[in-house]
Amino acid sequence: MFEDLSDFHAWLARRRRANTYRITRVPLTDLDGWDFEEETGNLVHRSGQFYSIEGLEVHTDHRAAGSWTQPIIVQPEIGILGILIKEFDGVPHCLMQAKMEPGNINTLQLSPTVQATRSNYSGVHRGQPVPYLEEFVAPRRGRVVFDALQSEQGSWFLTKRNRNLIIEVTGDVPVLDDFCWLSVPQLHELLLVENLVNMDSRTVLAGLPTRPADADTGPIAHDAGALHSTGQILSWLTEAKTRYSLRRRRIPLNAVREWTRSPDEIAHDRGRYFRVIGIDVEASNREVRRWSQPMLAPLYEGVVAFLCRWTGPTYHVLVQARTEAGTADVVEMSPTVTCAPANYEGLPPGRRPLFLDYALAAPASRITLDVRQSEEGGRFWHAENRYLLVDVPDDFPIHVSDDFIWVSVSQLESFVRYGNHVSVEARSLLACLHARLATGAPAAAGGIPAAARPQAAP
Amino acid sequence: MFEDLSDFHAWLARRRRANTYRITRVPLTDLDGWDFEEETGNLVHRSGQFYSIEGLEVHTDHRAAGSWTQPIIVQPEIGILGILIKEFDGVPHCLMQAKMEPGNINTLQLSPTVQATRSNYSGVHRGQPVPYLEEFVAPRRGRVVFDALQSEQGSWFLTKRNRNLIIEVTGDVPVLDDFCWLSVPQLHELLLVENLVNMDSRTVLAGLPTRPADADTGPIAHDAGALHSTGQILSWLTEAKTRYSLRRRRIPLNAVREWTRSPDEIAHDRGRYFRVIGIDVEASNREVRRWSQPMLAPLYEGVVAFLCRWTGPTYHVLVQARTEAGTADVVEMSPTVTCAPANYEGLPPGRRPLFLDYALAAPASRITLDVRQSEEGGRFWHAENRYLLVDVPDDFPIHVSDDFIWVSVSQLESFVRYGNHVSVEARSLLACLHARLATGAPAAAGGIPAAARPQAAP
Repeated sequence: MFEDLSDFHAWLARRRRANTYRITRVPLTDLDGWDFEEETGNLVHRSGQFYSIEGLEVHTDHRAAGSWTQPIIVQPEIGILGILIKEFDGVPHCLMQAKMEPGNINTLQLSPTVQATRSNYSGVHRGQPVPYLEEFVAPRRGRVVFDALQSEQGSWFLTKRNRNLIIEVTGDVPVLDDFCWLSVPQLHELLLVENLVNMDSRTVLAGLPTRPADADTGPIAHDAGALHSTGQILSWLTEAKTRYSLRRRRIPLNAVREWTRSPDEIAHDRGRYFRVIGIDVEASNREVRRWSQPMLAPLYEGVVAFLCRWTGPTYHVLVQARTEAGTADVVEMSPTVTCAPANYEGLPPGRRPLFLDYALAAPASRITLDVRQSEEGGRFWHAENRYLLVDVPDDFPIHVSDDFIWVSVSQLESFVRYGNHVSVEARSLLACLHARLATGAPAAAGGIPAAARPQAAP
Repeated sequence: MFEDLSDFHAWLARRRRANTYRITRVPLTDLDGWDFEEETGNLVHRSGQFYSIEGLEVHTDHRAAGSWTQPIIVQPEIGILGILIKEFDGVPHCLMQAKMEPGNINTLQLSPTVQATRSNYSGVHRGQPVPYLEEFVAPRRGRVVFDALQSEQGSWFLTKRNRNLIIEVTGDVPVLDDFCWLSVPQLHELLLVENLVNMDSRTVLAGLPTRPADADTGPIAHDAGALHSTGQILSWLTEAKTRYSLRRRRIPLNAVREWTRSPDEIAHDRGRYFRVIGIDVEASNREVRRWSQPMLAPLYEGVVAFLCRWTGPTYHVLVQARTEAGTADVVEMSPTVTCAPANYEGLPPGRRPLFLDYALAAPASRITLDVRQSEEGGRFWHAENRYLLVDVPDDFPIHVSDDFIWVSVSQLESFVRYGNHVSVEARSLLACLHARLATGAPAAAGGIPAAARPQAAP
């Protein structure tokens, strides 16, 4: 435990020095254990496990491009992202891990207690056992605080899901090297630091109940003060799922159009979106000390933004019903803006994502959060997004388009509990929003009423 | 409107006489507009619309048979099942339709106001417009009371869903022939009559809020008095979705093993499960007056049963996490028992469905509902299930198996609201359970406390 966050930063620096990592880019054709299948051109691991890079053909009436093909990561197995919590002196603490992921910009970020694919924990890769896994796999000693299947990046993964778990224990927990207890208030501070709390941590933390009552005594009145009832929001989502179509078909990677594979990488012909690259890793402290893998490297920084508004004491975010190539069920509740602006450069305003320019042009006085965060470093290479919260003025319309709806923060939390409703970008930004509200740094539009601040207790 | 239900029954008899229907069995090879595709043997409509009979290969570790192939109905489009409600003298009434479906045992049953596939209402079949459809398609004049995407029979349909809608209006509604207003209390009485309120009505009625507060002021305290919190139940469901696997692959109908196609029908080689048969229909009052279609004819009556228990004033049902061939997401919350007992005849007790024999052997004093109900007559031929509610004694265990959990009726209602959680059999039985509680006929185990009766107001 750390009295002060400067102690934590010193600890993190020590962990960084304690372990050595060497990450080297290599051509895809030189990846140890990985091959392009002869018939399909799919990039697969020799064991048939882990994940593969395949092709996807998409048809939808809910994106500017009605149909396209693209490379996509196929990883059908459900992994575990789990955070162990325990109260010390009445304050809930999370057991976090300083973890190297090869795609991390800064090598080490704060991961959940457990971040394991099924291949990890079923021993397919023949590494060491995953520490603390037994706390998350039934039968377990702790109390389940949060447990939901959640989607991951729909542009890059085909219907991938992870199980997000928060388990509370009261007994002794030995703290291994690379692990530390951080209080929820400390984590809130750290969520406002760029590229520190990793995506897996953020999506799990989005499920941390913000009011003590929530966990065990049932749903609270999520609709209190909200612009729309939960029933109206569910109907809006049903409407979107019915109105739009998303048809797709897995195709061989070598049937993907407008993308070219060289020995070195797979890249889009007009230099858009992402590349698939290969890396070799040597690490002194991972379950497996040396491995090779393909990674998806986005070419440009993204923007992930919620437009926000206070309605009396109730904070709302403008949620988008968004369709991605890999979305499991046509649409998910996504941030107001999720895109890489560079992919839309030079397009006339009418063909640029709605509210992108609004968010980018917002005056500093209305921006209550602006922090760069990384997406998952286990699959994505240096994937960085600018996370923004932008308060809108009172005269901003309530109804803006059938694809958007104002949802109170409390309502968004309740949809997170049910799983499969809220996109990973929205959950990740929600964790930062919780941090922003809890730390109570002066808000742009007159400050956040203290009464409205959620209590950060599990 | 009917002062008395005898007036309703007289009206229904008149509607039966007012229209003529002729339903004839014909060989599959003689079905007008339908063909077996040469390459696959799939039974498809010449337009490429409606639905098709195809093959499915299933692998799962959550059924006695680990893997099998079977014919299955593929109908990707989302239909609408909608009930219009309106208050008369302060009592909510539903606009119901006396509708012929070719598979109905008794030709006419009570359908929702609108029961339309997308092919119906988009005019693919070139029939007359669907009456009242405009009340359900946005923009609509009424208030959305309930709106969720819900699954249908997972043994017979591949991930089929319909949109279940309840819309409340205050303005004038002309009542067409074959339609009538029934009050919610009257519908509750009729739900206890066998084969009268059809499956589509039952699944929609399961979404009718049982407390006035539910519809607009947000989630109520569903967990009050419940044996498990909503969070625990969600975790139980997540656990089941993670623990079990369901992999499947569409295969050509002619690659299905252990089933044989004759010109007349498709049947299982050992006389189990169902047959696929063909019928010709002539009706005097349908959008299309004459058509042919294949239907799925189950060979045996099924049993759909909830074990139930009172815990103080809170009524619970024993929910099963069940996997069917066509289940969208590994498991759904299903009744304690869902099966056709004849398919398990002669098997030793350990291989028969859990609680089937318990439910069948229950003394009359513990059976609070025992009514035969039909499944959808538009796709299924004479599909009849025995719906049972069986009260268990107080010493019945709370934990019976990882696949089962006690859920309060109020909690089950809340999962119905979110869609995609509760199976069609469970929703259908829930509607009957609501009816059973609301009509307050003497319960087996000491009567239903009046205070526990849900108010049947939308």
